[in-house]
Amino acid sequence: MNAEIVGVGTELLLGQIANSNAQWMSEHLAEIGVDVLHHQVVGDNPDRIVEALRLALSRAEVVISTGGLGPTPDDVTREALAAAAGARLTRRPEIEDVIRERFARAGREMPQSNLLQADVPEGGRFIRPERGTAPGLVVEIEGRRVYALPGVPAEMREMMEGTVLPELAVLTGPTALVSRVLRCTGIAESRVAEMLDDLFHGTTNPTVAYLAGGGEVKVRLTAKAATRQEAEALIAPVSGEVTRRLGDFVFSSADVSLEQEVGRLLRAAGKTLACAESLTGGELGARITSVPGASDFFLGSAVCYTEKSKREVLGVSRATLEGPGTVSAECAGEMAAGARRLFGADLAVALTGAAGPDAHGGVEPGQVWIAIEGEDVSRRRPLRAPGDRDMVRRWAEQAALDLLRRHLEGKPLPRGPSVT
Amino acid sequence: MNAEIVGVGTELLLGQIANSNAQWMSEHLAEIGVDVLHHQVVGDNPDRIVEALRLALSRAEVVISTGGLGPTPDDVTREALAAAAGARLTRRPEIEDVIRERFARAGREMPQSNLLQADVPEGGRFIRPERGTAPGLVVEIEGRRVYALPGVPAEMREMMEGTVLPELAVLTGPTALVSRVLRCTGIAESRVAEMLDDLFHGTTNPTVAYLAGGGEVKVRLTAKAATRQEAEALIAPVSGEVTRRLGDFVFSSADVSLEQEVGRLLRAAGKTLACAESLTGGELGARITSVPGASDFFLGSAVCYTEKSKREVLGVSRATLEGPGTVSAECAGEMAAGARRLFGADLAVALTGAAGPDAHGGVEPGQVWIAIEGEDVSRRRPLRAPGDRDMVRRWAEQAALDLLRRHLEGKPLPRGPSVT
Repeated sequence: MNAEIVGVGTELLLGQIANSNAQWMSEHLAEIGVDVLHHQVVGDNPDRIVEALRLALSRAEVVISTGGLGPTPDDVTREALAAAAGARLTRRPEIEDVIRERFARAGREMPQSNLLQADVPEGGRFIRPERGTAPGLVVEIEGRRVYALPGVPAEMREMMEGTVLPELAVLTGPTALVSRVLRCTGIAESRVAEMLDDLFHGTTNPTVAYLAGGGEVKVRLTAKAATRQEAEALIAPVSGEVTRRLGDFVFSSADVSLEQEVGRLLRAAGKTLACAESLTGGELGARITSVPGASDFFLGSAVCYTEKSKREVLGVSRATLEGPGTVSAECAGEMAAGARRLFGADLAVALTGAAGPDAHGGVEPGQVWIAIEGEDVSRRRPLRAPGDRDMVRRWAEQAALDLLRRHLEGKPLPRGPSVT
Repeated sequence: MNAEIVGVGTELLLGQIANSNAQWMSEHLAEIGVDVLHHQVVGDNPDRIVEALRLALSRAEVVISTGGLGPTPDDVTREALAAAAGARLTRRPEIEDVIRERFARAGREMPQSNLLQADVPEGGRFIRPERGTAPGLVVEIEGRRVYALPGVPAEMREMMEGTVLPELAVLTGPTALVSRVLRCTGIAESRVAEMLDDLFHGTTNPTVAYLAGGGEVKVRLTAKAATRQEAEALIAPVSGEVTRRLGDFVFSSADVSLEQEVGRLLRAAGKTLACAESLTGGELGARITSVPGASDFFLGSAVCYTEKSKREVLGVSRATLEGPGTVSAECAGEMAAGARRLFGADLAVALTGAAGPDAHGGVEPGQVWIAIEGEDVSRRRPLRAPGDRDMVRRWAEQAALDLLRRHLEGKPLPRGPSVT
């Protein structure tokens, strides 16, 4: 089965937003084995929307549009869809009720214009909105199907997940596309590709894709088969071999974030954690606490951006500050020990370095030291991070979380410069 | 003049990446007065690329494609463009030299296949690449122009900025599009629209667009005129009136972030800042230090995620913890005072609350208290933030930064619940 996506909205043509809806939809259609051969984007213009729908219907079995279903005069997808179907719009009281109830619940007065959203092309169906007030519309035109969905991403996703994808999965029949994402850190994308590429010579099932960013590399394996089970059986041995080759660089075989994985390990070990941060300004703690339930193990973080606060809050010694300085193994170690003492934590991790853009006390941007301290662990590790300020901070957090992960998993440090 | 954008790449149709190129190009074409009426996306398939180019040429004066210019067999835009133009490809020695030189400089051996990138449709021009090895191609077909650019964003931008936009600006003649973005926080998008909408009745020059997200509302004014100066003259009075109506809710008339604005105000006032955080886990400090040069005024942040650390690190009293509890005006105030003392700062801001998803000690998710403390200021402010964990954290940071901004600007607190 093949499908086409038609994005409607002048804001897309003005570049005010990216067509992220098309990406999300394409990804999820691919997963159920639907081929997407074209995307189109048109503005809020009824004639051009009709033309776009006709073109899409001439080459795809299923057409999915997003946008133009709001209550204001520039929302014209409803009219265009009715015109393309040669049907007139009829007001549906069931939708009117939904819209009235939405406004009543929010305690707001309903503008009369909102009832336009209850119009459905005759002969068509609608998808009841759970969030917004715009229903999705479903119309058959010459044996082909058009779904018109709202442009608000959350409302589009709700209808894709609740209606469109399940309906199409039934139509595509026994085709299952299964993906597994392995996530690695501390290793370059080109090195990952070098280590794995021969596995995928002469085979396209499963396929492999590499995606690098934010200090990690995702390896995505995708297999297609008659059933989910068969697709999984195709992936399992390859995934096993990939994991064997990449070894400790892999921190998740289930597309879980590094902070989530570290949280899981801390909870399993029954250990508490504190942080000491400098160049990351608090982002390490923010990432760890972005996962619900972090209060089970996370006690706090001392963000010490000055020499004075490193000394007074964390107890870094004058000798260290005047000798090796703030970006050193010694300073990172004393910061970690200080944070552990301050918060009474089982484990502490510290980060200090120069984020850039300028050198910091003679230290080049990108130079970072990481330390962890605990009853049975005392490790220091340098990092030379590439890129701009944001990238250096991100890589530093990533390396600190990875050091924690390896410690909690009882795994050795990655190769490369390291003391202790 | 109108233009159409054709994205080429199977990765776009599989949803592996979003078509961010189309957004960037659309935005920059709009700025020089070029109307974009359609986007298309097709895969790495020569027939479909030819069809897409023909369709685009049938309705646009200028067609710009991205992608498919690499050296591997799935890169087929060159062939498709030649087919659409009815021309054959000729190898251009000038480009061969560029490619050879790129490889030599990187100390890498050049695969013979890379020389395919030196092929240009006969009668066409090329755009010399500064970064990559793929030249852009420029072909006239029946009096209309096609630019074929690489899909790597940095390479596409380099050629848009260096060649395509300047050439089209000459063709569109004296048309300037100027935008100004005013940023507000602490006010709902619908309220902003209500307060401003009558200004834009019966006029489309300047136009207005509202964009809400992350606890703020952007108001974008765009004017079109023969010259930049004239366009600016059209915007100035409207921008002035918008600022007058929205008053203290506007924190920037120059599209600057709230953390940047707060940093500017602190630097101008010669004051230092410390933070005390709970629900945000360090994100407030991370945002403040995301701006280079934050070490001029930012001393540090105490992220205290537990009652014990609030007591021991920040000196929050037992009476407060056992009475009103951690999510209270009292606790926020004592946290701010504690952070100010701990870091020896002129000003301190504190955030405490329940981020969710679950209630926290009987406090509903979204309930937040903010405090600032300084020699001449002592303010507390409650916030009821909507949405999920991420959104609550973001709104809390936003409200804390805004409280700081208003204090530094000597402005009153926003209306709504507040003590002190």
